[in-house]
Amino acid sequence: MIGQEILDFAKAIFPINRSLTGEGVRETFRHIKEHLPGLTVHAVPSGTEAFDWVVPNEWEITEAYIEDSSGKRLVDFANNNLHVVGYSTAVDVALSLDELQEHLHSLPDKPEAIPYVTSYYSDRWGFCLTHLQRMALVPDTYRAVIRSRKFQGVMNYAELIIPGESSKEVFLSTYICHPSMANNEVSGPSVLTFIGKWLQSAPRHFTYRLVFLPETIGAIYYLSQHLEHLRQHVHVGFNISCVGDDRNYSFVSSRKGQTLADRIAGHILPILSPSFVRHSFLERASDERQYGSPLVDLPLVSLSRTKYGCYDEYHTSLDNFDVVTSTGLEGGFNMITSCIQAAESNRTYVARFPCEPQLGKRGLYPTLGGGKVAASVDVLLNVLAYCDGETDLLTLAEICGLSIFEVADAAKTLEEHGLISEIRLSS
Amino acid sequence: MIGQEILDFAKAIFPINRSLTGEGVRETFRHIKEHLPGLTVHAVPSGTEAFDWVVPNEWEITEAYIEDSSGKRLVDFANNNLHVVGYSTAVDVALSLDELQEHLHSLPDKPEAIPYVTSYYSDRWGFCLTHLQRMALVPDTYRAVIRSRKFQGVMNYAELIIPGESSKEVFLSTYICHPSMANNEVSGPSVLTFIGKWLQSAPRHFTYRLVFLPETIGAIYYLSQHLEHLRQHVHVGFNISCVGDDRNYSFVSSRKGQTLADRIAGHILPILSPSFVRHSFLERASDERQYGSPLVDLPLVSLSRTKYGCYDEYHTSLDNFDVVTSTGLEGGFNMITSCIQAAESNRTYVARFPCEPQLGKRGLYPTLGGGKVAASVDVLLNVLAYCDGETDLLTLAEICGLSIFEVADAAKTLEEHGLISEIRLSS
Amino acid sequence: MIGQEILDFAKAIFPINRSLTGEGVRETFRHIKEHLPGLTVHAVPSGTEAFDWVVPNEWEITEAYIEDSSGKRLVDFANNNLHVVGYSTAVDVALSLDELQEHLHSLPDKPEAIPYVTSYYSDRWGFCLTHLQRMALVPDTYRAVIRSRKFQGVMNYAELIIPGESSKEVFLSTYICHPSMANNEVSGPSVLTFIGKWLQSAPRHFTYRLVFLPETIGAIYYLSQHLEHLRQHVHVGFNISCVGDDRNYSFVSSRKGQTLADRIAGHILPILSPSFVRHSFLERASDERQYGSPLVDLPLVSLSRTKYGCYDEYHTSLDNFDVVTSTGLEGGFNMITSCIQAAESNRTYVARFPCEPQLGKRGLYPTLGGGKVAASVDVLLNVLAYCDGETDLLTLAEICGLSIFEVADAAKTLEEHGLISEIRLSS
Repeated sequence: MIGQEILDFAKAIFPINRSLTGEGVRETFRHIKEHLPGLTVHAVPSGTEAFDWVVPNEWEITEAYIEDSSGKRLVDFANNNLHVVGYSTAVDVALSLDELQEHLHSLPDKPEAIPYVTSYYSDRWGFCLTHLQRMALVPDTYRAVIRSRKFQGVMNYAELIIPGESSKEVFLSTYICHPSMANNEVSGPSVLTFIGKWLQSAPRHFTYRLVFLPETIGAIYYLSQHLEHLRQHVHVGFNISCVGDDRNYSFVSSRKGQTLADRIAGHILPILSPSFVRHSFLERASDERQYGSPLVDLPLVSLSRTKYGCYDEYHTSLDNFDVVTSTGLEGGFNMITSCIQAAESNRTYVARFPCEPQLGKRGLYPTLGGGKVAASVDVLLNVLAYCDGETDLLTLAEICGLSIFEVADAAKTLEEHGLISEIRLSS
Repeated sequence: MIGQEILDFAKAIFPINRSLTGEGVRETFRHIKEHLPGLTVHAVPSGTEAFDWVVPNEWEITEAYIEDSSGKRLVDFANNNLHVVGYSTAVDVALSLDELQEHLHSLPDKPEAIPYVTSYYSDRWGFCLTHLQRMALVPDTYRAVIRSRKFQGVMNYAELIIPGESSKEVFLSTYICHPSMANNEVSGPSVLTFIGKWLQSAPRHFTYRLVFLPETIGAIYYLSQHLEHLRQHVHVGFNISCVGDDRNYSFVSSRKGQTLADRIAGHILPILSPSFVRHSFLERASDERQYGSPLVDLPLVSLSRTKYGCYDEYHTSLDNFDVVTSTGLEGGFNMITSCIQAAESNRTYVARFPCEPQLGKRGLYPTLGGGKVAASVDVLLNVLAYCDGETDLLTLAEICGLSIFEVADAAKTLEEHGLISEIRLSS
Repeated sequence: MIGQEILDFAKAIFPINRSLTGEGVRETFRHIKEHLPGLTVHAVPSGTEAFDWVVPNEWEITEAYIEDSSGKRLVDFANNNLHVVGYSTAVDVALSLDELQEHLHSLPDKPEAIPYVTSYYSDRWGFCLTHLQRMALVPDTYRAVIRSRKFQGVMNYAELIIPGESSKEVFLSTYICHPSMANNEVSGPSVLTFIGKWLQSAPRHFTYRLVFLPETIGAIYYLSQHLEHLRQHVHVGFNISCVGDDRNYSFVSSRKGQTLADRIAGHILPILSPSFVRHSFLERASDERQYGSPLVDLPLVSLSRTKYGCYDEYHTSLDNFDVVTSTGLEGGFNMITSCIQAAESNRTYVARFPCEPQLGKRGLYPTLGGGKVAASVDVLLNVLAYCDGETDLLTLAEICGLSIFEVADAAKTLEEHGLISEIRLSS
């Protein structure tokens, strides 16, 4: 059900022509804001410096095509926004086939796919087309037209902060800079939009910070503005990318692989699927590159169904709604909510007095002795045994071979009976 | 030989009707005291509080049976003290077969076994019988008689403290609250009695604290009285349970599995049998539950031949002297004395000067060079190489792939030649 | 090429009759000094104390043989200096075959080999011969002559200190006390001589300390004179032994197996050969015994091609130039220079600013986005990702599955572009 809702949303934002900057990003934010009215859209002027980087000019494109000498449009941006190399400069030129070839991109080994190509920081123009289209081109005089401009405008990103009882934050990030591709783009903002709604549906312990930003430059700009705050407050973070296919679950470990985010993902994903994949930080290629860089080093992993780069349709026009399904999106949504619930559940308790309590007088233990006790009684006793004021429930769950949700339920029962007390994290 | 002595003792205390409290416990202590005259028997008044618990009333039973309408006794406590549910309230009532069934306990999958059942903290009465006996019951008017009473009396436990040159203690605990079962009860106090004799046969480095107490409530009461002392003084501890069969060796790890007791058991048991079993703390069910609870946390493991719950005859009348043998008891005795000797041997040494000493001039090294040196010389050199003031002999033995007794012998030779010095533990 | 040069040198010093002391050692040093003019030869008077040891008298031998009653020399030191037990006392005596046998050493399982036997610290005399020679002896009156003397002389050793920009030292040790054996003796000083030349061919970061000394007593004496200095200054050390055969690569771990020397050898040797052997410290038998003893504990491993004791010809006359080859010596030379270069390369860096730098504007990253980046770009990004001021390049290389030389090259590029800064080791 939630899967279908997310899919409908994903299909609505799919056709928009997004890039690092421009109207497509703003239109995408208008769609998200319908579900998350609290979303704040920020605008950063072109030329703004951020660490080693500079925010590029805004890019606008209205029309682009290649036509042959008969005036027939062979490749047209109006049909698919992947047909133009992202950030192409304007052009209106006649050329021979040979001259045209230098500006074409196709994939010989995927002849039916239009590749996704960009040139953000170097002025050039180009068209992407299927290899079948390219093979069909004959010697002729072609006209290549791109009506685009780069200008001193803005780069946009959006954030939503949902306060909780703690000032410690769960940081959730996704990117909104790719044109019409389903898994590697719209699955991320679509699922995160519905995560935002779900987070607001009930009070939470942690404060939640959701950001939707252009990949790389957006994350770097955001870090340049919030680094000290994030380093102090982020309790756990998840970068969200490619969460819409129904093939597997995976995460990219943090730089040293030992953060709370790694522990949570390493606990939850095997529950979702025994065939889940734990990618090394060496396999990173999304914004975990920035969030995990040495002087940033947030406790964050990237969550995916099938990770970018690990599926055939990646970065092509074949990354469409054959790849992304309602079941796939629902699995992505469940993975993220499970990780969030694990973070919310991961308390640390201490026993209220030495030795086991007498569970029998509280109705928690059989009064008839000599036989085996029920598994649920064992869980209570095992949780009690590790409530030592140091072992958090995530560790305790791993020791006991249980899910954090099972041990959290047991801890709740024990706490209600006055047998354990929570040790508060400093916030 | 020691096995036969222990077996004779075990057979002598086997028939006594023990429970948490009562005359059976005191009679058992009189038997133990014949071998351990220094044993002190303590009496704790019913109703005494101990952490979350209250010492229950004393239970006395003189007679119990079920007879049929012809006056024939079908089930009789006089034949086997397992026939009555432990702590049964008094009853003298006539009932139909259906009414009687509600008070009967048998084991359909072990038709020849009388199960062991108790109801310490909830008032009820009941009889235990073999499933064959139960199946033979026909509709009739039965009379069920239990002549018992619960009264404001005492709970008994016994302790023996054997002083050594150090105030650091080796803590040895076993339980004495089960009626006529051989492995899961009398093997423990029987072996510990003879351990006590053996400990007194020679001076020891450590002080030894031996306790014989009712399981759970006895251990909890004892901890409530001695917690700070035990936490400060217990160097290593062993809970002793089911040490009389000849099938395997096993131990239950401590809560975090890293204490000296774990290291000793993990070193000694593989020497006794390569098929030994290291049970996780999750498999605990005896007094290690209390000794290892978070606010107690003694450095203790439970030692067993075949652990409670891991053999078919457990908690039934089949746990008899077919299960427990002189060989089995002798193995249990050897396991515990070996662990104790490992604790006594586990010194830490430091070399007296840099570089290897000239062993040749002390007759410890061949004067003819060029060939292989004997294994015994290698042991000396390897022990020397790790006498760094930090590595204890147990660690050293594991590094060298030797037993602690071999490395302790080598260390003794080296110390006698003035080549190493012991680093004293603070006591 | 370097292999052939080393082989020529090894052949030149092979025939010299070396022992713990004596003219053979001094003659060997004269050969080394031809290549290393800075070498300083030290003389330690007989009787000098060093920790638990005393420097033995100097041993001189001019002639030794066994002749039969016809005056035929059957065994002659002039033919092979292994024929005499090292440090044999003088003798000129007639004896029966039975009497002679008590002074003979041979190897029944290696009938063509003359064994290597010594008696440094106990006065005796003896001859070593092939088992075939021994079997051919018939009852006769034999004359055994050894013209030797032990006298108050000196023990020699040599050192070469090559200053670097850091006062931290790389310590390189080999021994020069064995007579004519190729792998277990002359390979070590021969390779170390050429390592010394190579070290002087370019400036180095570290100071290099090369010592050539009699095994055991030489190392102990050296430590007795330099212990505090070495403990403070040795950054990494390598003992060099048996580096001339072409069968394998191996090292003997340090006492705890965790020093920088272990890490370097554990990184370099698998690159040289996947079948390399990591010997435990328990398998030590050369001067790592002293350098790794508890109160010395230098960060040192022993490097070998095939380790002493692990090849059939060891400690016999069969350890000759069938075993040691130019290829074998060149491999030994490469192993040691690689380990030294790894030590020199093992810097620690920190990123100059948060987040990834924009590599594209520096020509280090493709300007066209969307496709896979080259492996060399990945290396840059991965090195950057771990330049956190804590992770040294050796660790970084292991994390990235690359050689330290590859990551050092990448680090150099990054440093040249001002993207990372070296964190200086305190020296």
